[in-house]
Amino acid sequence: MTLPDLATFARLIGDFPEADATALANWGRREPTLTKPAGSLGRLEDISRHMAAWQGHHPPRLARLQARVFAGNHGVAMRGVSAYPAAVTEQMVLNFHKGGAAINQLCQTFGIALSVDALSLARPTADFTLAPAMREDELREALDIGLAAAEPGIDLLILGEMGIANTTSAAALCLALFGGAAEEWTGRGTGIDDRQWQTKRDVVQAGVDAHPSKDPLRILQCLGGRELAAIVGAVAGARLRRIPVMLDGYVCTAAAATLQAMRADALDHCLVGHVSAEPGHRRLLQRLGKQPLLDLAMRLGEASGAALAAALVIAALACHNGMSTFAEAGVSDKDS
Amino acid sequence: MTLPDLATFARLIGDFPEADATALANWGRREPTLTKPAGSLGRLEDISRHMAAWQGHHPPRLARLQARVFAGNHGVAMRGVSAYPAAVTEQMVLNFHKGGAAINQLCQTFGIALSVDALSLARPTADFTLAPAMREDELREALDIGLAAAEPGIDLLILGEMGIANTTSAAALCLALFGGAAEEWTGRGTGIDDRQWQTKRDVVQAGVDAHPSKDPLRILQCLGGRELAAIVGAVAGARLRRIPVMLDGYVCTAAAATLQAMRADALDHCLVGHVSAEPGHRRLLQRLGKQPLLDLAMRLGEASGAALAAALVIAALACHNGMSTFAEAGVSDKDS
Repeated sequence: MTLPDLATFARLIGDFPEADATALANWGRREPTLTKPAGSLGRLEDISRHMAAWQGHHPPRLARLQARVFAGNHGVAMRGVSAYPAAVTEQMVLNFHKGGAAINQLCQTFGIALSVDALSLARPTADFTLAPAMREDELREALDIGLAAAEPGIDLLILGEMGIANTTSAAALCLALFGGAAEEWTGRGTGIDDRQWQTKRDVVQAGVDAHPSKDPLRILQCLGGRELAAIVGAVAGARLRRIPVMLDGYVCTAAAATLQAMRADALDHCLVGHVSAEPGHRRLLQRLGKQPLLDLAMRLGEASGAALAAALVIAALACHNGMSTFAEAGVSDKDS
Repeated sequence: MTLPDLATFARLIGDFPEADATALANWGRREPTLTKPAGSLGRLEDISRHMAAWQGHHPPRLARLQARVFAGNHGVAMRGVSAYPAAVTEQMVLNFHKGGAAINQLCQTFGIALSVDALSLARPTADFTLAPAMREDELREALDIGLAAAEPGIDLLILGEMGIANTTSAAALCLALFGGAAEEWTGRGTGIDDRQWQTKRDVVQAGVDAHPSKDPLRILQCLGGRELAAIVGAVAGARLRRIPVMLDGYVCTAAAATLQAMRADALDHCLVGHVSAEPGHRRLLQRLGKQPLLDLAMRLGEASGAALAAALVIAALACHNGMSTFAEAGVSDKDS
């Protein structure tokens, strides 16, 4: 896939497939026969249903779990909105490649393949209080990388990001998409003090004031970052290729929200791995009508919450696919 | 271990060790050096800290994850308090042995060894509205089985139960231990209708009225079941052998609450895997001051929520033990 223009991307979104009715029906025939009271596995049942419906395949499969972490640098990092220097983005990418980060341990633990895409780290986006963060060609390039990341054959695509100052970008996106006050969407990210927090809120508000567009892709171009745009592309590419998605925390979900602003059901193939300690994330999930799987006060990004939640998907499919039926096990059902 | 009398068990509880200060200190020295913002792994950090503290070992280890599911039959099952016939307890034990239940899939998924103890299924406890559920020797035998289940060498003991009508027993235990109204503690278990729910509440109230003791072990004897008493023994045995415990849902936690009624810090070595959809469980966890790890509307028992939460423990230890430090990775720390 390549994107000659943004209208092409909008057309791809118009072509999104729906959940597969046959796979759903097959899931619905098997689930009540399993040796447990109906509904007693709670959201594990919802997960196996989701996977069958969006893979378009029953039984749902998990031979290939793939995490993609997109990394980008942000012009607004120079404004003092983060607790860490911008150089940490690249240092952490090296740490991912060497296997030393949290996401490496989580992927190894749960049999998840990990790919890291460093997106033009030497060329940060523009400071969005002064200019659009990306040119249109930069946005298209990042969307394209994301679209290509949703490779055929992946059974669950786990998305995440790394980018110093990107919770500032996420907060600006949310403020532009949903309105409200800057302080509702602006948290303390990696851990900033009160003075930096005030600066961060001011930067978020200034960014939104500087780019008053209501067009979601234009908002993404002006306030987003390359890693956020890549996530938008990956979520869209996964839908087109019938790959269920696991979203991570605030930055990842804020990026995905761009798509939902373009098409109300655009995130129906996505699970949300966790709700972050970053307070804007809970508010954002409420706006999106999404219920997170985990609530563990994590706020690391780099797909960590999504990779952890993948363990629940593995468990859910093991139960739905592997359990005996009442008839096979000779267990009396409720109505027998 | 054998229990000549209940006073011996009470003395064991008096001998409970505390968290290990050296392991805690070593955890506290390593955790802030890892390549992530301080605190950004949220409750995963609490989990690895808990494991080090209660194993008395740093780094914490997970070579042996052991699930024990205790099964018992209940006289009150004859009172029409469950959606399933009492024969299902034994049928499900066979299903566990054949590998067809949810807990089998979960244990296989996460590398957990599973043992199932069927406790005198042919001799249900007495109907507790008419007589104490167990004789004292039956209580001691079940406590003993639980104590022995906490075998040396286990790194995490995952506890669960199976027993038709045992949410009735759990509700009666909670009402006797904490007071309130029967309806606050009595849920719909495996899925009963309004008429059965009224019967169940009446049975719970009648049981507590029939046995007005305030002594926790006497309450356990009168209103509990063999599988609940075995869980009490296992939680105690694990503490004595420095084995952290993962509790499951309402029945498992209600059993453990007996110990906390005897000693306020008796459950400090226990994590709670999940909060059940059975409404009494959330109330009970609040009374115990315990925060569950998962909230997935599960209500199956058989250690399913605890086994699922064990995945979080595996992940937490992988992160704490396996991540690179800032110095090893060449990543700039916040203060550098």
